[in-house]
Amino acid sequence: MKSLLAAALLFVPLLTTGQPALAQEKPNILLIFMDNFGWGEPGFNGGGIIRGAATPELDQLAAEGLRLTNFNVEVQCTPSRSAIMTGRYAIRSGNGVVPLGEGTYGLVQWEVTMAEMLADAGYATGMYGKWHLGRTEGRFPTDQGFDEWYGVPNSTDEAVYTSLAEFEGSGVEPTYVLKGVKGSAPEKVKPYTLEYRPLIDRDLTDRAIDFMTKQAGEDKPFFVYLPYTATHFPTMPHPEFVGKSGNGPWGDLLMQIDSYVGELTATLDDLGVADNTIVIFTADNGPEALSPGETSLTVETAIHGTAGPWRSTLFTGYEGALRVPFAVRWPDQIERGRVSDEIVHAMDLLPTLASVAGGKIPTDRVIDGVDMSSFFVGDQDESGREGFIVYMGNDVFGVKWRNWKLHFNEQTGWNGTLRKYTMPRVYNLMNDPQELDNVLFPHTWVPKAALPQLEKHVASLKEFPPIPTGAPDPYEPPE
Amino acid sequence: MKSLLAAALLFVPLLTTGQPALAQEKPNILLIFMDNFGWGEPGFNGGGIIRGAATPELDQLAAEGLRLTNFNVEVQCTPSRSAIMTGRYAIRSGNGVVPLGEGTYGLVQWEVTMAEMLADAGYATGMYGKWHLGRTEGRFPTDQGFDEWYGVPNSTDEAVYTSLAEFEGSGVEPTYVLKGVKGSAPEKVKPYTLEYRPLIDRDLTDRAIDFMTKQAGEDKPFFVYLPYTATHFPTMPHPEFVGKSGNGPWGDLLMQIDSYVGELTATLDDLGVADNTIVIFTADNGPEALSPGETSLTVETAIHGTAGPWRSTLFTGYEGALRVPFAVRWPDQIERGRVSDEIVHAMDLLPTLASVAGGKIPTDRVIDGVDMSSFFVGDQDESGREGFIVYMGNDVFGVKWRNWKLHFNEQTGWNGTLRKYTMPRVYNLMNDPQELDNVLFPHTWVPKAALPQLEKHVASLKEFPPIPTGAPDPYEPPE
Repeated sequence: MKSLLAAALLFVPLLTTGQPALAQEKPNILLIFMDNFGWGEPGFNGGGIIRGAATPELDQLAAEGLRLTNFNVEVQCTPSRSAIMTGRYAIRSGNGVVPLGEGTYGLVQWEVTMAEMLADAGYATGMYGKWHLGRTEGRFPTDQGFDEWYGVPNSTDEAVYTSLAEFEGSGVEPTYVLKGVKGSAPEKVKPYTLEYRPLIDRDLTDRAIDFMTKQAGEDKPFFVYLPYTATHFPTMPHPEFVGKSGNGPWGDLLMQIDSYVGELTATLDDLGVADNTIVIFTADNGPEALSPGETSLTVETAIHGTAGPWRSTLFTGYEGALRVPFAVRWPDQIERGRVSDEIVHAMDLLPTLASVAGGKIPTDRVIDGVDMSSFFVGDQDESGREGFIVYMGNDVFGVKWRNWKLHFNEQTGWNGTLRKYTMPRVYNLMNDPQELDNVLFPHTWVPKAALPQLEKHVASLKEFPPIPTGAPDPYEPPE
Repeated sequence: MKSLLAAALLFVPLLTTGQPALAQEKPNILLIFMDNFGWGEPGFNGGGIIRGAATPELDQLAAEGLRLTNFNVEVQCTPSRSAIMTGRYAIRSGNGVVPLGEGTYGLVQWEVTMAEMLADAGYATGMYGKWHLGRTEGRFPTDQGFDEWYGVPNSTDEAVYTSLAEFEGSGVEPTYVLKGVKGSAPEKVKPYTLEYRPLIDRDLTDRAIDFMTKQAGEDKPFFVYLPYTATHFPTMPHPEFVGKSGNGPWGDLLMQIDSYVGELTATLDDLGVADNTIVIFTADNGPEALSPGETSLTVETAIHGTAGPWRSTLFTGYEGALRVPFAVRWPDQIERGRVSDEIVHAMDLLPTLASVAGGKIPTDRVIDGVDMSSFFVGDQDESGREGFIVYMGNDVFGVKWRNWKLHFNEQTGWNGTLRKYTMPRVYNLMNDPQELDNVLFPHTWVPKAALPQLEKHVASLKEFPPIPTGAPDPYEPPE
C-alpha cells in the first residue's frame, strides 16, 4: 500500500515532535511472548471479558497495529522457541520435543539466533523470562546473543518440585532462577518455587522496563525478548491481582498480564520511542486444558485455556495448538487497525526482523522463515506464505495449505492417543474450524496442491540432515 | 452511571443539529434477527475474517453501542422466537419444540407479543422475514400485532421441497412466501423454492428500508422486526455476493449480511433518525453444524457454524446453543463501546422495550423477562439477571447461574443422544467454556445457589399451567 521509503517520508514531520530521531533509525524491538496462551484469550480475538477480565491494553495494542488471525507456531514449548529464535523448523535444530530428561539439549552454538542476528546488527539485547532451549554450560541465552538474561531455563511446572515431599532426595536438582551477562556463566539467584512463581512476571516486567529505560538514552537500538512464565500452569496470579477480577485465578492473571503490557507500552511512550519501536505480542503455542485428575496441580478447579473457535490444545496438530494471538505495533511503519488472515509462521520473524533491522541471516543453512516486512508495512496484501509443515514432536502430523489442512496423524491432546491414517484426512478450516469432517472426497485436489511443500521440505531434510537432539558443542554440519 | 433523565438532558444539544426531535420522543426500534448464527461468527466476537469475510458494519454497530457477550436464547428456532415475542419461556406458550407436523401450532391469540405491545404504545410495526410461530388462520404475524408482514411462515429448509422428486404427490403443501396486512389473511406471493432462497434476504432488506423510509416522515415511531432467513441452511448467498469473499458460500453470505446491515444503518442516517433509533442485532440460537452425510442438503462441503469458544451447536443445552451475538446501538441513550458479560436473556427484550417505548406488559400472566433498560443505558452495571432455566424442547436440561451451569441432561447436537444424570453435572463456564469437566465436587454449593430459581420456576408452572401445544383459539387460561 505504501513503500517503506514513502512511509518514512510521511512520518518525518511527526518525528520532529518527539525525541530527536530519524525514520531511518533502526527500530527498537519488544517481543512479548506468552506461554500456553490460546488464540481465544485476548479481547482482540473475542476473549477477555468472557475469560474473566477485559484486556484493554492488549486490545489497544492490536488496534494500533496489525493483528494476524492466522499466525502459527510449533505446538510445544521447546520447538516453538527454537523455531522463533532460529527461523528454522525445530526438527532441524534437534529441538522437536520438549525435553524431559536431564541431559544436554537445546540450541548448539552453531545456530544463529534472533538475538545474535540483532546483536550483530548493532542492537543491545536483553531477555527476561523462560528459555527452554538448554540448561547446561554454553546453552544459555547469554551464550546465544543476549547481553543479559534473568529468568528460568526450563518450564514453570518445575516450580512445584520443592513443594513435593517425594521430590526430596531424588537427586534431581531443583530449578533455579538464573541471571547472567554475555561472556560468563549465569548465576543462581534463587530456587524457582511456588512462593516465587506468582511473583516472577512482575520481576521480568520490571527488568524489561529498566533495560529499555537504560537503553533509550544510548546510541544503540534495543531488542527485548520477554517470554513470560504466564500463563503456563500452575495458574498463580501475583498477590496484587489475586481476587481483583472477581472471576478466579485465570481472570486475575489475564488482568495482570494486560496491566503489564500497559506498563510496557506506557514506558515506550514515556521514553519517547514508541513510534519507532516494534512491539509484538504473541505466544509459544495453544492453550493448556487440564481436566481435574489429569494433573494434581489443578488443585480445586481445572483451568481450560481457550483457542476460541479452533480445535483442541497444545501438543496436537489442530489449529488450537498452531494458531496463537498475534499483534504487532510499529506506529512509524505499520498502518493502524489492519487485520489479516494471511498465514504467517513464528519462523518468519527472524528474516522479517533482520530485514527491518538491517541484520544478516546466515546463508550456509536452511532458513525456513519468510521475510514478512513488506507484508507487515502494507506494501503487499499477501504474506507470501501459503502453508507450512505441521509437526508434533519429531513427527509430521500434517500440512497446512491456504484454508485447508491435511492430517496424516492426529492426537487429541498432550495426553492423547496417536491415530495414524492410511489416507490423509482433509479439513476445510473456514467451513469447519473444529476439524471434524474429512472432506478428502471430493477434495482430492487439495493433497495435489498441498503435498509439494512437504516433498520439498523432506528433500531439504535429506540434503541438510537435522542436528541430532542432544548433539554436543562444538557442532559442525556434515559435509 | 447516568439516569435516563440526565441522559436525556445531556443529549438535547446534540439533537438540535439533526431532525427536529426531542429526547422524550419514543425511539424507533429495528430488531435484526439472524437464523442459526453462532456467537463466534461476527468480527466483534472474534469471527469475521477467519470465517471468510470481515464484518465491518457489524463491528461498527457493536462499537457504537453496547455489546453483550452473555446474551442467551432458547436453543431451537420456534421456542426462541416465542420467547422473544412474548417475554416468556416458550414452554408457557406451548412452543417448546420446533413443529414438524402440519397441525395447528404457534402463538394463541391470547398471547401479547412485542409487536402488540409496541402497536398499543403507538408504533407502526413491520415484519420482514421468518415467523415460525404458526402457519394457520389467526396465527400469522399480522394476527399478532404487525401492521404488515412479508416473509415465510416456517423454516428455510422447506425451500428445498419443490426441488425433490420424492416430494411431489406427498399431499404436503409447499411452503409459500406470504404477504399480509393487519386485519386480513396473508396472501401467497410465490412458492419458497431453491431459486428464491438466495434472493429473499435482499427483498426483506428492501422492504424493511421502504417501511422505515415511509414511517420516518410520519408521526408514529416505527418497530421493524427483521428475522432474516440467513444463515439457516441451505447456505445460498445472493448472486451479487456469490464468489465475492473468495472463501466460499459462508464467507459470501457473511459479507452479504454485513452489507445489508450497513444499508440499514445508512438508511437510518439518511433519514436523520439514527440517534433515536434502537438497533439490535442478534440471533435465534447457536450455529448449525452439518457434517457430510448428516443431511443431503450440504452438497459438496459441510458448513459448520461456530460458537467461538463455546461448546456445541443448536438443540443442545451447551453455551454454543444458548449464547448468541448481541449488539444494541442507541446513540441518544447508550454509551459507545461498552461491553458487558452480564447475563441477559431474549425474554428480557419485551419488558425492556416496553420500558423505553412507554408500552404496557400484561399483568395477568407470568412475564419471565427482566426490564434491562437501566442496565442498557448505563444507570446500572449489573443486568439484574443471575441466571435462567435451560430448556431443550420441553425438557429442563439445566440451570445457568452466574458463571456456572448445572446440567441434568445433555445432548451433543440436534441429532444427538440424550444422556440423563442422576446427580447434576456442574460446569464452570469461565474456566471451562467447553463444558467438559464436572466440578460438582468441591462445588456442591453451586446447586444450593442455583436451584432456587428452578424451584420457583416449577412452582410458577404449577400455578400457571402452560398452554398446551397446538391449543386452538380462542384460548383462555384455566381459572
